[in-house]
Amino acid sequence: MNLGSLLERVNRLYTEKIGVVCGEDRFTYREFTQRVLRLAAGLQREGIGKGDRVAICHQNCHYFLETYFAAAVIGAILCPLNYRLSAREIGFILEDTGARAVIGQPRFYPVLKEAVERLSVPVTVFWTEKEAVPGGETSVEVLIESGTDSPEEVEIEEDDVAQLYYTSGTTGRQKGVILTHRNVAYHSLGTIAELKMTDEDVWLHAAPMFHLADAWATWAVTWVGGTHVMIPEFNSAQVIEVMQRDQVTLTNMIPTMLNLMVNDPAIQQATFPSLRVMLSGGAPIAPEVVRKIMDAFGCDYVQTYGMTETSPYLTMSLLKDFLKSRPEEDRFRFKAATGRPVLFVDLKVLRDDGREVAWDGKEVGEIVVRGESVTPGYWHLPEETEKSIRNGWLYTGDLAVVDSQGYVNIVDRKKDMIVTGGENVYSTEVENVLYSHPAVLEAAVIGVPDEKWGEAVHACVVLKNGMAVSAKELIDFCKKDLARYKAPKSVEFLPSLPRTGSGKIYKKGLSDKLRDEGQ
Amino acid sequence: MNLGSLLERVNRLYTEKIGVVCGEDRFTYREFTQRVLRLAAGLQREGIGKGDRVAICHQNCHYFLETYFAAAVIGAILCPLNYRLSAREIGFILEDTGARAVIGQPRFYPVLKEAVERLSVPVTVFWTEKEAVPGGETSVEVLIESGTDSPEEVEIEEDDVAQLYYTSGTTGRQKGVILTHRNVAYHSLGTIAELKMTDEDVWLHAAPMFHLADAWATWAVTWVGGTHVMIPEFNSAQVIEVMQRDQVTLTNMIPTMLNLMVNDPAIQQATFPSLRVMLSGGAPIAPEVVRKIMDAFGCDYVQTYGMTETSPYLTMSLLKDFLKSRPEEDRFRFKAATGRPVLFVDLKVLRDDGREVAWDGKEVGEIVVRGESVTPGYWHLPEETEKSIRNGWLYTGDLAVVDSQGYVNIVDRKKDMIVTGGENVYSTEVENVLYSHPAVLEAAVIGVPDEKWGEAVHACVVLKNGMAVSAKELIDFCKKDLARYKAPKSVEFLPSLPRTGSGKIYKKGLSDKLRDEGQ
Repeated sequence: MNLGSLLERVNRLYTEKIGVVCGEDRFTYREFTQRVLRLAAGLQREGIGKGDRVAICHQNCHYFLETYFAAAVIGAILCPLNYRLSAREIGFILEDTGARAVIGQPRFYPVLKEAVERLSVPVTVFWTEKEAVPGGETSVEVLIESGTDSPEEVEIEEDDVAQLYYTSGTTGRQKGVILTHRNVAYHSLGTIAELKMTDEDVWLHAAPMFHLADAWATWAVTWVGGTHVMIPEFNSAQVIEVMQRDQVTLTNMIPTMLNLMVNDPAIQQATFPSLRVMLSGGAPIAPEVVRKIMDAFGCDYVQTYGMTETSPYLTMSLLKDFLKSRPEEDRFRFKAATGRPVLFVDLKVLRDDGREVAWDGKEVGEIVVRGESVTPGYWHLPEETEKSIRNGWLYTGDLAVVDSQGYVNIVDRKKDMIVTGGENVYSTEVENVLYSHPAVLEAAVIGVPDEKWGEAVHACVVLKNGMAVSAKELIDFCKKDLARYKAPKSVEFLPSLPRTGSGKIYKKGLSDKLRDEGQ
Repeated sequence: MNLGSLLERVNRLYTEKIGVVCGEDRFTYREFTQRVLRLAAGLQREGIGKGDRVAICHQNCHYFLETYFAAAVIGAILCPLNYRLSAREIGFILEDTGARAVIGQPRFYPVLKEAVERLSVPVTVFWTEKEAVPGGETSVEVLIESGTDSPEEVEIEEDDVAQLYYTSGTTGRQKGVILTHRNVAYHSLGTIAELKMTDEDVWLHAAPMFHLADAWATWAVTWVGGTHVMIPEFNSAQVIEVMQRDQVTLTNMIPTMLNLMVNDPAIQQATFPSLRVMLSGGAPIAPEVVRKIMDAFGCDYVQTYGMTETSPYLTMSLLKDFLKSRPEEDRFRFKAATGRPVLFVDLKVLRDDGREVAWDGKEVGEIVVRGESVTPGYWHLPEETEKSIRNGWLYTGDLAVVDSQGYVNIVDRKKDMIVTGGENVYSTEVENVLYSHPAVLEAAVIGVPDEKWGEAVHACVVLKNGMAVSAKELIDFCKKDLARYKAPKSVEFLPSLPRTGSGKIYKKGLSDKLRDEGQ
C-alpha cells in the first residue's frame, strides 16, 4: 500500500486518457506519468532521497499534482505550504521540516526568497516556469528534461511518512501533521467507496491543493482513472466556465466559494448536467443554503467534516436508504448535518466523564476518532501527539451532539479556533503577535460572524497605560508576521477584558457582548 | 482494522433495520448483534479464546453469519468446512487446524460424528437446531441463551488470523489458507468501492458461505448496512421466488446455478426490478451467455476471477468509461473477459523468463498478484507458502493473456485442477485415492467438458496385470474417502498412459484424445 503504485496502475489502464487538464494544457496519463517519473529521477539526481523533505509553494496546477506523485515515488516527504503564509511562517516550516528542496511558483518569489534566506541550512528552490526563472535558478522543467523515465527504485513501506501538513495549534505553534502512505491510501479507497467514484469522474481542484480538503482527491481520482481539472485561483466566473467546459462531475468547495458562486448572476444561465455531487464542509450550513446550492448547481450536496490529522474525512451527510423517503424538510436537515461517520472511521462523541453522549441531539461531547486514516502524530512533537491521541483515539477538540440516527452535528469548538474563508486560524497565534506589540497590555482574538468569510478575525485589545496605537497600525503589525488571513479584520479597544472566576479571559463574554451590540 | 468493529458500526447506525432474512426468520441488526455477542460470550464461557480454531459445517443460514462474526469478535479463527467433504477429509482439517469446537448443522450429524471420532484431541460440537439436538449435545441456542451481551473484550490486531479456508493443492494435500483481519477488511472495502455497494443493497447468499465466492459478502454487506438474504440449498424455483420477494439487488452465483436458472422456464414470468448486478466467475463464459443472463435477469453482469488465497477477488469485467460507447459486440466481449485488476490488487501476467507478456491477447503467461487482500500463507506449511509467494508476489498457477486494454483472459491452468459445479478438484488428490486401490497400476484424472457442471471429473486408469475392477467399483471406492463431487463421474480403462519425453504422464494427450473421440 504505497501511493506511487497508484500512478503505475493508472498509467497501465488509462494510458491514453486525458488525466490532467490545466488551463490550455492537457496531459494523458502516459504523458503525466512520464513527467512525474522524470521529475522523480531529477530530484534523485539532485540528491533527494527517501525520507527527505521537499516543500511546495504553489497554486493548483499540474506541477502540484506532479510533485505529489514524484515525492511519493521516491519516498520523499512532501510538505505542501499555504502560500498565504508570511515569510516568517514559511521559514519556520522549512526549518522545522529540515526541507532539502522547495518547488516554488515564481509568483511567490519574494516571500519564498525571504523565507529561504532565514534558514540555518541552505535549501534549493526549483521554480516552475518554463521561461524567466527568477534569479537564474534551476527550473522544474530542467529537472524533468534531465531526468530519466526510470528513477531509482525505492522500497516504500506503508508506514513511511508520505506528507507533512502544517497546521497552527492551540498553542500558537505550527505543527507538522504526519500522514503515512497507509493513512492516505486507505482514506482514498474509503472515500472512493463513499462517493462511488469511478473513471467517469472529473474532479475540479477548486480549493487549494495544499489543504487536504482538496488534496485527498489527488490520490482518489488518479486511483479510479478519473480526470483532474485545475483552477489556479478561485474566480466564480472562471469556475462556472471550466465546470461546464470540462464536464466536471465532482468537487469540493469551501463555503466562501460556494457563497460567491450561488450569488453570481452568471450561474442562472449555466447548467451542469455532468455534476453529480458538490462537497463542502469546514463550517455549519443551514438546510436552506443546501437547497440553494442544489438548485443552483442541479446536483446532490454532501456536507463533510474532517481535519488534517485524519486525511481528512470523518463524516459525510450521506442519507441512509430509509431516510430518503422522509419529507423533504427532514432530508435537508440530514443533508445539512455534519454527517454520519464515514465507512473507514470509528467515531464517538464523549462527555467529560468519558462516556458517550445520549443520541438525543442535545447532550454535547467531544468528537474522538480512530482508524487507518488517522495520523500517527505530529512531526518531532511527541508531547503534542500524546496530548491529542490517547488510548488510540484522536481527540478532535470539536464539540458535537448526535441525533437519534447517529448523525453528528458540531455545535462548538473546544479548541480556540476561527474558520475564515476555509482557513483555520488559532486565536493564540494571533494573540502572540499582538502581545509582542509594545503598546498592547492584553489581547483576546475571537471569530465574529461574517457574511463573506463565514467568520472574521476580531481582536479585543487593552492598551498599556499612556500608550496609543490605531486599529490599522495593529492590523499592519500582524500582517508583517502572519498570513494576511490571520490578521484581525477589526480591532476593538477595551478598558479591560472580562475574566472567569479562575482569572482566565472569558472569550464567550466578548462574543456575547458583540452579538448583543448587533455587530 | 478488525472485523468485529463492522458489527459495532452496523448496530449503531442500522439498529432497527432488518439485516438478516433467513427463511421465515427476520433479524434486525440489533437482534443480530445481540445474538452474535451472546454466542461470542457463550463460546468464551466454553473456553474458546483468541487464536483458538472453531470450525463450522453448515448450509447458508443466519447461524453461519452469526458464527463468522462471533469468532471475529473474540479473536477466534473460523474454519468454514465444505459440507460435501467426506468424514476423512473433514477429520483431516479438524486435526490440522487443531479445532477446539465445531458449529454443526444436525443434517450433517453422521459425517461430522464420524470425523470427530477420528481426532486425537476431543472436539465439542455445538448443534444449531432449537429442538432435537442429536445425541443430547449442547445446542448453539443454549450457548446464545447462556451468553451475556458483553463478551470479554479482546485486543485484536489487524494481522491476527481471522479465518482458515481449506483448499486442496496440487500435491493432493489439503492446505489451510490463512486470511487475516486486514486481508478480509481491506478486500471488503475495496469490493464495496468496485461494486458501489451501499445500504440499499440486498445480497442473496446463494453460493455456499463456506466458499469465499459468497463469504466475502458477509463483511461487505454488513459494513455498508445492507441486508443479507439466505438460500440454504440452491434450487432454481426457490431462488427466483426469494429474489423477487426480498428485492435482491446483488448476488454471486456459480456458473452451474446460473445455467440452471436461465434455462428454468419460470424465469420468463419473473421480473427482478431491484437487481443491479449479477456476479459470477470460476469458469470462462461466452459473450452469448453473458447476454442471455442479462436478458433473463434484466440486470448488469460482472465476470469475476479470484481465489481463496486472495479473499477472493482479483479481477472484475467492469467496463472502462470509454469502452461503454463501443459497439454492443465489443462490450459483451469485455464483459465476458476475466476482467481488469480490481482497485486493490497489483496484477501482472509473467512469461517464464519473468517479463510481462505483451498486451496483445496472444502471449500467454502466469498471473501473479500482490496486495493487502493476499494471504500471508498456508497454515503451518512454510514450504508451501514459499513456493507460492515469491518476492511478495503470489503465483496463481493460472495462465492468461492480456488484451490491449489490460483486460485479462484466463486460457489455462498451470495447476492441475478441475472446476466442477463451482468446486475446485485437484487431480492429484483423486489420483492418490485411485492409486490406493489394489487393482490400479496407474491413474490420471482430467476434467472433461460437461453441460451441467462445467467440467466433470474423468479418470483414465491402467489396471495391474491380471486384475479386474469395474468403473462403478472404482467410483464408489473414491466416494468413501473423498467428497462426492471429487469422485470421477466416468472411468476409462486404458492399456497404458501417454507420456512426455521426460516420462511424465501427458494429460493433454488424454484430453485431446477424448475431444477427438467426441466425448
